[in-house]
Amino acid sequence: MPVNLSNIDASSLLPINGISLGFAQAHIRKPNRKDVLVIKLVEGSHVAGVFTQNRFCAAPVIICKKHLASNKPIRALLVNTGNANAGTGETGLQHAQQSCSALAELLNISSEQVLPFSTGVILEPLPVEKIIAHLPTAIDNAKSDNWLNAAEAIMTTDIVPKATSRQLTIGGKIITITGMSKGSGMIHPNMATMLGYLATDAAVSQSALEAIIHYAVNQSFNCITVDGDTSTNDSFIMMATNLAGNAEITQSSADFMALRDAMTEVAIELAQAIVRDGEGATKFMTIQVEAGQDEAECRKVAYAIAHSPLIKTAFFASDPNLGRILAAIGYAGIDDLDVSQLALYLGDELVSEHGGIAASYREAQGAAIMKEAEILVRVVLNRGQATATIWTCDFSYDYVKINADYRS
Amino acid sequence: MPVNLSNIDASSLLPINGISLGFAQAHIRKPNRKDVLVIKLVEGSHVAGVFTQNRFCAAPVIICKKHLASNKPIRALLVNTGNANAGTGETGLQHAQQSCSALAELLNISSEQVLPFSTGVILEPLPVEKIIAHLPTAIDNAKSDNWLNAAEAIMTTDIVPKATSRQLTIGGKIITITGMSKGSGMIHPNMATMLGYLATDAAVSQSALEAIIHYAVNQSFNCITVDGDTSTNDSFIMMATNLAGNAEITQSSADFMALRDAMTEVAIELAQAIVRDGEGATKFMTIQVEAGQDEAECRKVAYAIAHSPLIKTAFFASDPNLGRILAAIGYAGIDDLDVSQLALYLGDELVSEHGGIAASYREAQGAAIMKEAEILVRVVLNRGQATATIWTCDFSYDYVKINADYRS
Repeated sequence: MPVNLSNIDASSLLPINGISLGFAQAHIRKPNRKDVLVIKLVEGSHVAGVFTQNRFCAAPVIICKKHLASNKPIRALLVNTGNANAGTGETGLQHAQQSCSALAELLNISSEQVLPFSTGVILEPLPVEKIIAHLPTAIDNAKSDNWLNAAEAIMTTDIVPKATSRQLTIGGKIITITGMSKGSGMIHPNMATMLGYLATDAAVSQSALEAIIHYAVNQSFNCITVDGDTSTNDSFIMMATNLAGNAEITQSSADFMALRDAMTEVAIELAQAIVRDGEGATKFMTIQVEAGQDEAECRKVAYAIAHSPLIKTAFFASDPNLGRILAAIGYAGIDDLDVSQLALYLGDELVSEHGGIAASYREAQGAAIMKEAEILVRVVLNRGQATATIWTCDFSYDYVKINADYRS
Repeated sequence: MPVNLSNIDASSLLPINGISLGFAQAHIRKPNRKDVLVIKLVEGSHVAGVFTQNRFCAAPVIICKKHLASNKPIRALLVNTGNANAGTGETGLQHAQQSCSALAELLNISSEQVLPFSTGVILEPLPVEKIIAHLPTAIDNAKSDNWLNAAEAIMTTDIVPKATSRQLTIGGKIITITGMSKGSGMIHPNMATMLGYLATDAAVSQSALEAIIHYAVNQSFNCITVDGDTSTNDSFIMMATNLAGNAEITQSSADFMALRDAMTEVAIELAQAIVRDGEGATKFMTIQVEAGQDEAECRKVAYAIAHSPLIKTAFFASDPNLGRILAAIGYAGIDDLDVSQLALYLGDELVSEHGGIAASYREAQGAAIMKEAEILVRVVLNRGQATATIWTCDFSYDYVKINADYRS
């Protein structure tokens, strides 16, 4: 897809001291693909997670929350693709527990110290025996420079693996951050899910890590949409191995913001990579809403634009169809919005103000901007100081094709 | 389109005593098509209207509301297609006023007695001179048995005209109801809009008519969705000429409910006709949510299903993709929803309960139901007494094609 980032060089993904990753081919749904991933964490690591708001949350999400709440130190993550273990009722919970217990036994830890993740077909029983049978292979090949293999192991309909690394210096120590994500619709129907994993060797307290994950997710994975659907399995995890040698970062540390912002930057890149790999996507759009009364109303307007199938098809067609954007702003749900006060920009071009087309606007300029692969839509509400940014992609024939043909 | 109703026989559309309809070809956007409609109402008629909630409401909507609020008796409606007069600022308001004044002068009434409606391209100035120039033609050919021509005159990208009639007896008098609608997406982008006009010869008080329109719109036009987009121009009008000879119906009349229900039935047929003619539609879906705590939460669930591009593409593909439906129920926004309590039916077939697939369900049965052109999706929440029903259509390649190619 034209808006995907270029191929990742395996050597650009930096190992995180204290973390090793191993994979296996368990033939869960398709042969000859990596579909089981084990991530091992050194003793003393901190782990935090945020999960889907969907009421139909999958069995592994329920178990993840339970294990995190048990406050036993997390020592391993187990991810499978090919089956989401969602809509599977009580049996699904048992399967998720069984896979945790099996991995725990092999690693000589307790099952609460394992977090399970599944992504794939919904409403079919998890082939838990296949997963368990291949755990020894995944453990055997686990190593710290396996991030590209890991990013490939968590892919479903993703076209490209998504992973990136950053380094910064805190207190004279080099801190490394490496993360990966998967997802190419907000939900893969059957192949549910957005997954994100972000690891660092920084020494950071549990509560600071939790503050960082909530901040980062709101700036990244909560700012993307492909089709407005929220998966049953969405999960985002941060891991800190505390081995970088820096003084432990707490929320009151001078360096807290530096770490938080670096982690957030990585989360944004991984979240945007999901939109870039959106099903059938040919355009990457940034929807920026400014000068609103509060962030919530800015997000309402941004999502109304980002979710409109009419707007998304117009972007696919490179058609500067401003009426569709203005209409979406109008129905976004801000009851007292005065549309004569707002301004709409495509890229740097003022296209609408005073409730109509801007006098300076020429359709040829709009058309030229709409032909770009990356497009900025800016709405200035002129009623306050708040801002929100959402990233999304267009709606193409291929979106219909991928989703209509998915299970066949 | 397979889900459209069969062709309308002009003779099936019954004249309403006191109403005449005339059209003209004003070449507003395309040559050789009826694009101006004048509806004349006899003195003593009552008229009520409901309009789009979109904050970017079009100039004619603003003028309609103003003229209805003036309490001068409405004597004429003026509709043009080809241009929506939306996003046109102050000039748009002047254009709408000018067209009302021109028609008022020709009919020897005041301009507040005219309601204007426009549907078509957004953000382009209304060619008001063309409309005004063709008013005499429309007035000259106005007659009471012109409903099919009128229904054709208000079409934009609609494939078929949409109109129907009913009769009932009230107090020994035959009451006739005839209505028409247009729209094939909730918004036509450029070609904005859903329009509905419903006329009766019944004698009915102004306040009773207003009660009827609010009841009817909530059961009909507010229960349909094609793509979730709300137009800048949506308008629904009820007219009563008071010539049927019945005793005037008020809200306390014994016959109020009979008239209300008959008008509502016609409104539902006209609203469903819009969905059947939905852009690219190949399936007509009824989403019925039962046993909710209140209607609002039932509608939330129904709309989450009806708006999901993933579900709409699955219906297009005749794929019984239950996971997508369960996921939509889960993210509909009912915070305390217990998904283990709900039941999901495709047609009469129980497909999911206890948070998973129903034991009796076989995919072949689901696949057979999904192949039908008309499909019922039933969700039983099992947490209350409320119900809501929404009608929608599927999402096909043609939806993308129509909306991507629209302005070219």
